[in-house]
Amino acid sequence: MKNLVSMKDLSVEQIRAILEQAQAFREGAKSTLKNHYTMANLFFEPSTRTKMSFEMAERKLDMDVLPFEAGFSSTLKGETLYDTVKVLEAIGIDALVIRHEENNYFESLVGKVKPAIINGGDGTGNHPTQSLLDIYTIWQEFGTLKDKVVSIVGDISHSRVARSNADALTRLGAKVRFVCPPEWQGEFEAVNDFDEVIASSDVIMMLRVQHERHDGATSFSKEGYHEAFGLTIEREKRMKESSIIMHPAPFNRDVEIASELIECDRSRIFKQMENGVFIRMAVIEMILKGRE
Amino acid sequence: MKNLVSMKDLSVEQIRAILEQAQAFREGAKSTLKNHYTMANLFFEPSTRTKMSFEMAERKLDMDVLPFEAGFSSTLKGETLYDTVKVLEAIGIDALVIRHEENNYFESLVGKVKPAIINGGDGTGNHPTQSLLDIYTIWQEFGTLKDKVVSIVGDISHSRVARSNADALTRLGAKVRFVCPPEWQGEFEAVNDFDEVIASSDVIMMLRVQHERHDGATSFSKEGYHEAFGLTIEREKRMKESSIIMHPAPFNRDVEIASELIECDRSRIFKQMENGVFIRMAVIEMILKGRE
Amino acid sequence: MKNLVSMKDLSVEQIRAILEQAQAFREGAKSTLKNHYTMANLFFEPSTRTKMSFEMAERKLDMDVLPFEAGFSSTLKGETLYDTVKVLEAIGIDALVIRHEENNYFESLVGKVKPAIINGGDGTGNHPTQSLLDIYTIWQEFGTLKDKVVSIVGDISHSRVARSNADALTRLGAKVRFVCPPEWQGEFEAVNDFDEVIASSDVIMMLRVQHERHDGATSFSKEGYHEAFGLTIEREKRMKESSIIMHPAPFNRDVEIASELIECDRSRIFKQMENGVFIRMAVIEMILKGRE
Repeated sequence: MKNLVSMKDLSVEQIRAILEQAQAFREGAKSTLKNHYTMANLFFEPSTRTKMSFEMAERKLDMDVLPFEAGFSSTLKGETLYDTVKVLEAIGIDALVIRHEENNYFESLVGKVKPAIINGGDGTGNHPTQSLLDIYTIWQEFGTLKDKVVSIVGDISHSRVARSNADALTRLGAKVRFVCPPEWQGEFEAVNDFDEVIASSDVIMMLRVQHERHDGATSFSKEGYHEAFGLTIEREKRMKESSIIMHPAPFNRDVEIASELIECDRSRIFKQMENGVFIRMAVIEMILKGRE
Repeated sequence: MKNLVSMKDLSVEQIRAILEQAQAFREGAKSTLKNHYTMANLFFEPSTRTKMSFEMAERKLDMDVLPFEAGFSSTLKGETLYDTVKVLEAIGIDALVIRHEENNYFESLVGKVKPAIINGGDGTGNHPTQSLLDIYTIWQEFGTLKDKVVSIVGDISHSRVARSNADALTRLGAKVRFVCPPEWQGEFEAVNDFDEVIASSDVIMMLRVQHERHDGATSFSKEGYHEAFGLTIEREKRMKESSIIMHPAPFNRDVEIASELIECDRSRIFKQMENGVFIRMAVIEMILKGRE
Repeated sequence: MKNLVSMKDLSVEQIRAILEQAQAFREGAKSTLKNHYTMANLFFEPSTRTKMSFEMAERKLDMDVLPFEAGFSSTLKGETLYDTVKVLEAIGIDALVIRHEENNYFESLVGKVKPAIINGGDGTGNHPTQSLLDIYTIWQEFGTLKDKVVSIVGDISHSRVARSNADALTRLGAKVRFVCPPEWQGEFEAVNDFDEVIASSDVIMMLRVQHERHDGATSFSKEGYHEAFGLTIEREKRMKESSIIMHPAPFNRDVEIASELIECDRSRIFKQMENGVFIRMAVIEMILKGRE
């Protein structure tokens, strides 16, 4: 593994290796990298959560992290992403995390530049470290993904997480179902009645309602959405005993999920964020080792 | 001490302990923290001075400091401060410095989240590390605060510093007087003639005129204010021999204070900023030790 | 050398010493600084390239680098640059890199503040570390600058690089020629036909066309400029065998230089950026040693 831009690049074996390394880091393992590395996080879209999670992972691996201010960069002067990355290569940066709204932006980079490229999210929904931390959280819970029923609930058509996750979860043996209003399912097959799947799911994975993409187009009020497709207190009571709640965050309290459930016993929402740091440590270490 | 949000939380004994630790750091003492800590500085209002002072203190304590860009954060997506802090807790951050315009924003955090909360300024005027560095500067000068006459001059009604300081100074035995035009004294008792207090003050603590809050409302021109309530060259000459000048900065040259006095012999203005780093080191260390 | 604000301050001997130290760093030499230092990079104009190059140099010298956000600073509240720098001095910063649009902004600082001042670009075209990395790149190539013919091509009148470079190159024995359309030569003597100098140049140093400064004022379309004053594929073929191409970047592909030439054999464009890190390490180390 020399870069990580999409879950499609990872074999089931590689995914397992990443989960095991993440677990080792969680249990206190130290980095075994031989060299001192420098990274930079190029976030052309705001994302405190993902950016700070990567920053923490990089610090825990004892790297130097150079600050990069996208809003203040030469891309303002019309520089291409390739040229920006070549500059950072010349300056001596070993690996880059990039979030960029352009679809498959990484195609102009991988194989053409020296720094390792780790995709922190692109326009078409590749967000592999988010998928890996979701998988890790389920694996941690059940010891396996085989035959686990995962219901992904919300705006499938606009969600990076949903599309990036579904394929990988399926390859690992999970049974993935999408749940959403008909107008949000896009090209995907989906269940349109949330109540049908509540009791049979091992994992209820709620997606964020992206208000900023739905103005006018949706027929739902916040309350109406919560009633029809939100994880309400009433629905939580009908969940299977061992089942868990997940959400990639940021969440809209009382829209896709009842505020009281965010930190309830079944919720793994903050656990997911904890896991994100260990997954990112594992990914970065494996990529840099693959280049040593 | 598990957090520091207001001077009201600190006993006179705790204040003394902080001053002594700050002095030890000034004299070259090293941190005696047992663990390696990670912090972040969440400044939702601009303040280079306070932010960089905290950053320096954190580096001197050998901490990792994760960058947090308020203008680029998920609060843009409507996330509450509590949820943002829970994310940072999950990522593994040990302590947070927060500046936020909301009154008592910290009430939603203290006792509810794991990271230590250090208030870097809120809407109601709590700014405890500023108060502590002011107190430290006076203590350093006179060896005590007992019976020292401190005249705080300027816009009392809008000043964080004034309100945060006055109570603590009084508890430590100082005699605090406010000096300002009648229209700026708000609910406070104040002297309205600066010349009355010049010769009898041990400390003249000037406040910044906040032009941005006074548009139209004030009857003063810059020159008129300087004449009536500014520390002019003429007034400085009538100050007591051992007395000192303080200002929390940023200052408006030739408005609240004559430009020539900023670095004069009596001025402790840049000394205050030096002291700020040591006070913040002491506060952070004591809080983290209290949690070890 | 206590500060570096302009190439004019450097003797030929000092320049040579910097080149040699940069070369030593390139070959793996470690910093021999005795103390631990803290720096900050104050960029009041955007410049990812220069800022990150300095950041990398500072990290390689094992310094602490405090983040400074110009757009979020007290200069917003009308603070002078001198007062901002005095604050940073009080906080304990040892050296500052400053980029500021004001002409000779550093005159208010040098000799008046404690931190070392390193000019990262000012309004009048002083940008000494850029000049030094250009010189280093030529020296690295030819072992000397003596009698090397350097053609600087482009908007001389608006270019920091051109003006900063020309004098130093000349002092080191190079033969500098400016090449540009008559309307862009400003006060300088220039050749107005690029083809006249192609075959006789050892170095073709292309400048960036600054679209943002030429709206309407220029009679050139992008294609027209490329044809008349750009380094085209055709022109490159007529270059001297051992000659090289340089550009300070960011470049406009297919305007001042054909896209295919950016990474061609003769191009030293990314080499210049590599060299920038070593030059900045050398400059910072020499200045701080001069103060130890």
